[in-house]
Amino acid sequence: MRPDAPQRGFHEAEFAARTAKAQARMAEAGLAGLLLMTEPEVRYFSGFQTLFWQSPTRPWFLFVPAAGKPIAVIPEIGAVLMRRSWLDDVRTWSAPQPGDDGISLLTDLLAPLAKAGETIGLMKGHETSLRMPLGDWERLMANLPGLGIADATRLVQGLRMVKSPAEIEKLRYICEIGSATFDRVPEVIAEGMPLEEVFRTFRREALAQGADDAPYVVGASEPGGYSDVISPPSRRPLQAGDVLMLDTGCSWDGYFCDFDRNWAVGKADDLARRAHDTLWRATEAGLAAAKPGNSCADLFRAMSAVIAEMYKSGGDIGRLGHGLGTQLTEQPSHAAFDETVLEAGMVLTLEPSLSYGAGLMMVHEENIVIRSGGAELLTTRAPQELPVIGG
Amino acid sequence: MRPDAPQRGFHEAEFAARTAKAQARMAEAGLAGLLLMTEPEVRYFSGFQTLFWQSPTRPWFLFVPAAGKPIAVIPEIGAVLMRRSWLDDVRTWSAPQPGDDGISLLTDLLAPLAKAGETIGLMKGHETSLRMPLGDWERLMANLPGLGIADATRLVQGLRMVKSPAEIEKLRYICEIGSATFDRVPEVIAEGMPLEEVFRTFRREALAQGADDAPYVVGASEPGGYSDVISPPSRRPLQAGDVLMLDTGCSWDGYFCDFDRNWAVGKADDLARRAHDTLWRATEAGLAAAKPGNSCADLFRAMSAVIAEMYKSGGDIGRLGHGLGTQLTEQPSHAAFDETVLEAGMVLTLEPSLSYGAGLMMVHEENIVIRSGGAELLTTRAPQELPVIGG
Repeated sequence: MRPDAPQRGFHEAEFAARTAKAQARMAEAGLAGLLLMTEPEVRYFSGFQTLFWQSPTRPWFLFVPAAGKPIAVIPEIGAVLMRRSWLDDVRTWSAPQPGDDGISLLTDLLAPLAKAGETIGLMKGHETSLRMPLGDWERLMANLPGLGIADATRLVQGLRMVKSPAEIEKLRYICEIGSATFDRVPEVIAEGMPLEEVFRTFRREALAQGADDAPYVVGASEPGGYSDVISPPSRRPLQAGDVLMLDTGCSWDGYFCDFDRNWAVGKADDLARRAHDTLWRATEAGLAAAKPGNSCADLFRAMSAVIAEMYKSGGDIGRLGHGLGTQLTEQPSHAAFDETVLEAGMVLTLEPSLSYGAGLMMVHEENIVIRSGGAELLTTRAPQELPVIGG
Repeated sequence: MRPDAPQRGFHEAEFAARTAKAQARMAEAGLAGLLLMTEPEVRYFSGFQTLFWQSPTRPWFLFVPAAGKPIAVIPEIGAVLMRRSWLDDVRTWSAPQPGDDGISLLTDLLAPLAKAGETIGLMKGHETSLRMPLGDWERLMANLPGLGIADATRLVQGLRMVKSPAEIEKLRYICEIGSATFDRVPEVIAEGMPLEEVFRTFRREALAQGADDAPYVVGASEPGGYSDVISPPSRRPLQAGDVLMLDTGCSWDGYFCDFDRNWAVGKADDLARRAHDTLWRATEAGLAAAKPGNSCADLFRAMSAVIAEMYKSGGDIGRLGHGLGTQLTEQPSHAAFDETVLEAGMVLTLEPSLSYGAGLMMVHEENIVIRSGGAELLTTRAPQELPVIGG
């Protein structure tokens, strides 16, 4: 354990404050409750943290009423852990039970609201999914005639976008671990190592540096640059003249870093060096624009203007960064369509990318927190010049 | 890389065979296509494998028509990788695009079927989720009046349950890596190590043994036994008299092992030893019952009969094992409600558990493949007697 590790978990006051803010927004929107079923949202309001979400077998529900603490409706296997949370009302069933996976319990909970003709919020917009069988959702709705369902996506995402000091401390810590891991790359990775071993070595190093896990490790290494940033690694050994990129989402206490680094293997060609320099300066422009009052679209335009020096037509990746927190990618998006206004406490990635040469691309990424005076880096800034491994 | 590593990926014939089987079942069910959007299913029919699914931002769609190859409707960022697959028809849009995240493309694809009054299959049953915004789903349906939607959960799960020889080879390999990792535990983990470091050490060891990742590591260590198997690790050091359990889902080329091991730290008390022996024998009963023609409910009853020697009332975990493959847990479930008949080629966990003492529990788990003659272990069988670390 690193000596600077923050406390795990949160004080009850954190969850009470999140719930109170949600309830204030629910009152404005005329919502009698929020029905949540995805891991980040259930955790946000309850503190319930488990890897068990990796199993698709069981649904989990949390209901935030108009007043009072959230109510959990969950499989019995989660009862011990959920009862350690700040919640008082934890309702369970013996799951899996395909004929009735929580539907009766939810019906009992929501029937009085349906009878009263109330409306509850559900996250059904951009970046959401329905983490329960659609058939069960349809049955639940048939059980609850008169219940209104409103889209609460922006309400919940808007809350989650602005991080508390305790959340920022966790994000700073995992970004430090990520930076320390990238610092070690030139010592533990060398020409001749198959890319698959590079990924494995990187993961082991991230754990050694203090990450709880490194679930997201992607990248590429190809001559002069790479063409794809989402593929699994090949067994091809790193070769002199490659550009190697590693992009990682490491996690600590359920919070993520998400940034990448580029290196030339042995030697760098001029085009790759120019791409790196351009993206570094695009990031500088993003850092300068990342202050309260500017929008995500402003951030996008500031970075795009620099990228256009080398790459006129813009990319099809659709955005140049995003929010960061308990998910690898969160709202908002640095894109022309996103007019979200930056606020102090938002934690964001700046992720400019460009295409060059014959089908090559480069991506550069840093993580920041918005402060009243502007951007504060959470990652150790990449060097302006493309670094060379074993040069 | 271990010398016995199988080839990564699959030959095109594997995907063609999966698609042909699906189309035969679709014809029986009168379905003009299957609309898929979850990672295991998109990968099953296309081979598309990426960690990018960890980001919730973008939806991904695969349509399996009544005849011919599947059609991908995906974000542009996945185009290079998907075009390397066996598919010929890859349609992309610049995502994220909250106003139209693939909905126009899906509408174009499905409109002729809607016009003809056809019905397509969608997974909307047990263990499924809708991995797209519910609001987008509702808009898509409004665009396609006349299109019938039938539940294709069992159709797809039924296909995926029975593994091909190439899949079994990958599953055997990751189970070997898992077994080798557990074998190392008494050498790398000792009394006094905080549980958090135990988990980190285990993950690093799994990577060293050749796993691509160890995304699922849970467990517990408490005096005489543990009470909860889904919590994150504490910083409490292992103490003499503890029972330590580690349960892991390690992955290789997208396939999982999922099994656990128990150890006494320093010394074992009689109750814990008896629980371990009972679960070991319950697993033997499961191994004997795991043959073609028996059902999952038969497996459940065979294991329950042994568990009842020590624990009369049965558990609330709801099942005693499950399917295994590209997901940590898959269909079927070894539960009283699941009458799925075992077939050669199914890969399963046997996972008997019981409660004992003052709120303690123990879980035991092995992975098997069903052969025509019965169960074949993929894991190195746990010893009958509770092993002692540093005894």
